[in-house]
Amino acid sequence: MTAYLQLKTIFKRLSHLQYTQRIMQWDEAVMMPQGASDARAAALATLCRTSQKMLISKKTQALINKAKEQGGLSSWDNTNLMWMEKQYNNAADIPLHLVEEFSQAGTLCEQAWRQLRPQNNWQAFLPHFKRSFELIKKIAEIRSQSLQLAPYDVLLDDYAPGFTQKNIDNIFSKLKLTLPPLAQKIKARQATEMRIEPQGPFSIDQQKALGIKVMSALQFDFNRGRLDASHHPFCSGGPTDVRMTTRYDDDEFITSLLGICHETGHALYEQGLPLEWIDQPVGAIHSMAMHESQSLLIEMQVCRSKSFLEYLLPQIKAEFGLQPAFTIDNLLKVITKIDPTNLIRVNADEVTYPLHIIVRYEIEKALFKGEITIEDLPHYWDEGMKKYLGLTTKGNDKDGVMQDVHWPSGAFGYFPAYTLGRLIAAQFFATFANQHPNYQDNIKTGNFAPLRAWLKDNIHSSASSLSTDDLLLKVTGKSLDSDYFIEYVKQSF
Amino acid sequence: MTAYLQLKTIFKRLSHLQYTQRIMQWDEAVMMPQGASDARAAALATLCRTSQKMLISKKTQALINKAKEQGGLSSWDNTNLMWMEKQYNNAADIPLHLVEEFSQAGTLCEQAWRQLRPQNNWQAFLPHFKRSFELIKKIAEIRSQSLQLAPYDVLLDDYAPGFTQKNIDNIFSKLKLTLPPLAQKIKARQATEMRIEPQGPFSIDQQKALGIKVMSALQFDFNRGRLDASHHPFCSGGPTDVRMTTRYDDDEFITSLLGICHETGHALYEQGLPLEWIDQPVGAIHSMAMHESQSLLIEMQVCRSKSFLEYLLPQIKAEFGLQPAFTIDNLLKVITKIDPTNLIRVNADEVTYPLHIIVRYEIEKALFKGEITIEDLPHYWDEGMKKYLGLTTKGNDKDGVMQDVHWPSGAFGYFPAYTLGRLIAAQFFATFANQHPNYQDNIKTGNFAPLRAWLKDNIHSSASSLSTDDLLLKVTGKSLDSDYFIEYVKQSF
Repeated sequence: MTAYLQLKTIFKRLSHLQYTQRIMQWDEAVMMPQGASDARAAALATLCRTSQKMLISKKTQALINKAKEQGGLSSWDNTNLMWMEKQYNNAADIPLHLVEEFSQAGTLCEQAWRQLRPQNNWQAFLPHFKRSFELIKKIAEIRSQSLQLAPYDVLLDDYAPGFTQKNIDNIFSKLKLTLPPLAQKIKARQATEMRIEPQGPFSIDQQKALGIKVMSALQFDFNRGRLDASHHPFCSGGPTDVRMTTRYDDDEFITSLLGICHETGHALYEQGLPLEWIDQPVGAIHSMAMHESQSLLIEMQVCRSKSFLEYLLPQIKAEFGLQPAFTIDNLLKVITKIDPTNLIRVNADEVTYPLHIIVRYEIEKALFKGEITIEDLPHYWDEGMKKYLGLTTKGNDKDGVMQDVHWPSGAFGYFPAYTLGRLIAAQFFATFANQHPNYQDNIKTGNFAPLRAWLKDNIHSSASSLSTDDLLLKVTGKSLDSDYFIEYVKQSF
Repeated sequence: MTAYLQLKTIFKRLSHLQYTQRIMQWDEAVMMPQGASDARAAALATLCRTSQKMLISKKTQALINKAKEQGGLSSWDNTNLMWMEKQYNNAADIPLHLVEEFSQAGTLCEQAWRQLRPQNNWQAFLPHFKRSFELIKKIAEIRSQSLQLAPYDVLLDDYAPGFTQKNIDNIFSKLKLTLPPLAQKIKARQATEMRIEPQGPFSIDQQKALGIKVMSALQFDFNRGRLDASHHPFCSGGPTDVRMTTRYDDDEFITSLLGICHETGHALYEQGLPLEWIDQPVGAIHSMAMHESQSLLIEMQVCRSKSFLEYLLPQIKAEFGLQPAFTIDNLLKVITKIDPTNLIRVNADEVTYPLHIIVRYEIEKALFKGEITIEDLPHYWDEGMKKYLGLTTKGNDKDGVMQDVHWPSGAFGYFPAYTLGRLIAAQFFATFANQHPNYQDNIKTGNFAPLRAWLKDNIHSSASSLSTDDLLLKVTGKSLDSDYFIEYVKQSF
């Protein structure tokens, strides 16, 4: 067997362990009884350690070198080998015990967060959070040495390969200039508009039934995935086993429904990956930035549109009966409103959403530079919210620094991927719309097959075979350009 | 660190991987969308291979030898080391690829069984089954060489350590003599009795609510476990994360309820294990024979009794209203009836149940001796059913050879553990009853705390620290004696 084929076997096994880890994490968030918290944290840590050990063995390194010498690979195989080497280099210098400790601390910290966030208890959460942060910082510093990148750039690259603080700073500075005045203008206009909020309660069973109808219409394949409820919505699992979640509140149904639309976008990406490469790095999702581009394309570009409401309104009425709020024009106002008092990222509108990301990004940058410490976070969070959104979270950590699952779970460097993904989504969708002048007619009648086919053919099926830049060039003819998003905001609001 | 402490770390990690495997298998049976079948089979095979590789490394062997030399261990630690060595010896000679292939073939075979059993399609199932059987036979033969035991004895020992064909033959020959005439006598008597069957439908939600009430009364800890539905009821997971299932049929509620009682017995065993040994071999459940003794003690000795019905009847009425069938005397007849036409082991009554096991045991013996082949099974199944139960399964494989999940999943040698467990249960329960003359009063009022405490103190907390024989001697003062069970049957029916 050639060196490359041996590597494929190793990475196939790694993909099995990663899939296992994702299902165990899904189970932890959705199914697991609380008494199993410690056992689960320990099991996940051992899984992490076992994968890491398999990845960084001397054998892997020798095989990579040999495969590169032997050459003669197809283009996809070559890219596959590139990802193998990248994974190896990213991991090789991290001691196994550190990987294990970080995994365990992250799981326990997330469990503590689930309990302490509703209590607004930052002080009790702090020791868990510090422990987890210290470990990820240590890991980022070790990788920083071997990769010759700043520690925070190392983490950014995990979620948005090819992006660094330098180019993200550029992109974000444009958004910082454009969005706040735009948000003010839209808020002023919306303040004079009449808007009727839907009146609850909306039973969770009915919300779920509506969600499943929408997922089916959007071409989610239930033979290869399922929908459940969790504390924080997410999409995980694997291409043939997508685990999507949302959260329900019987006061209103819009949040769970748009959550489902968002996660369906993630799910379609997973389900659109090429099955013949299912267990190899080149066949995996490219990055979280690309993943978010797919979820945001579906949620923001498709489901928050007037055309979509034409499809959706009869479904809403069938499920919940008639209400004064249930007209297309009114619902459009509801789902595009800019709430000047909203503190929560996941509830934010299109225009202020990137500002929530920028608050987090600037804190992460300062944290990894050592300019601020974990203890300072509530203060800097409040400062950031004041600066970019004119809001305060003083004394309200549950809607401030404790609102997201990412940091508690150890995912630092993730947030920028949302906004990068949003910009990518706008660029992709503009291209799709351009190529399909009648696409709105299809959306109005609930025919999402052409969109799904376009996404699969142009984006999903390329998996990790192209860089973000190359894929954007191939599909849209241009590198990343935030004007598509800004233009969209100007036209839509 | 001493050699023994190093071994504890290795076996702790192994226990994490085994826990992971059990949750992944639970998920496969309860949650997984069908399209993930292949991915799941591959992932489970990799998990198996990874555990096996960790177990049989040369390092493990060297550490075992060194730990034995070093000595100085407590009694539990010594037994722990004994189990470590036993696990090592059981696995050391099996090639890794065989473990991986068998796991994958077993998962796929079980998936095929789920689909083909309802279709009564033995022919389509046969190739899957042959493939899986060939692999387990090969593994048994390799282990047979190194352990100097017959291949079938090797498998029996996996589920009922200390038991071989020789002593099982002895035990079963007594049952073969006693039970058939006893069953005839009881059947003849019951044929003249009036019995009113409960009239459905019984909604699945209400059945589940009743089941959860009963589980709570029986002291199931929902902070460390949950109840779901699956094709074949089972109990898995781990001491802090018990995954119990049952199956519902809205025509009647007795099967799901008694299924829940049975699995709760398993669950109490898991939840009663000593947490300080949770990740070591000596802290695990002793064997499937002991596990079945706990499920059957709860189901048969406790829940199929008149006293239990006094507790249960008000709960049944509260859930399902009033019916002519809902009297204690009538329900007792319903749950102790011997159905002369029943083909299904899990639905069998107390008296004929061991005969169903004997049918399977004799087939397994012949299979592993090479006297019959997989192709012959429908024929020999039919022969066995005729011989011991006077029934035929000709042309009805779904209620014959295809009825159980065990063989499709690769679990050969498991079945005798049910009857051994039943005999152990009768012996334990006679001792408990003897020590608690008023136990029936507690059962009648739904106070199961004294029983639960007795089981935990005497049985569960000993985990794997004693052999079956030593535990029986300690708790009951005698080695295994089938007279307890025969006496129980004579008195109860």
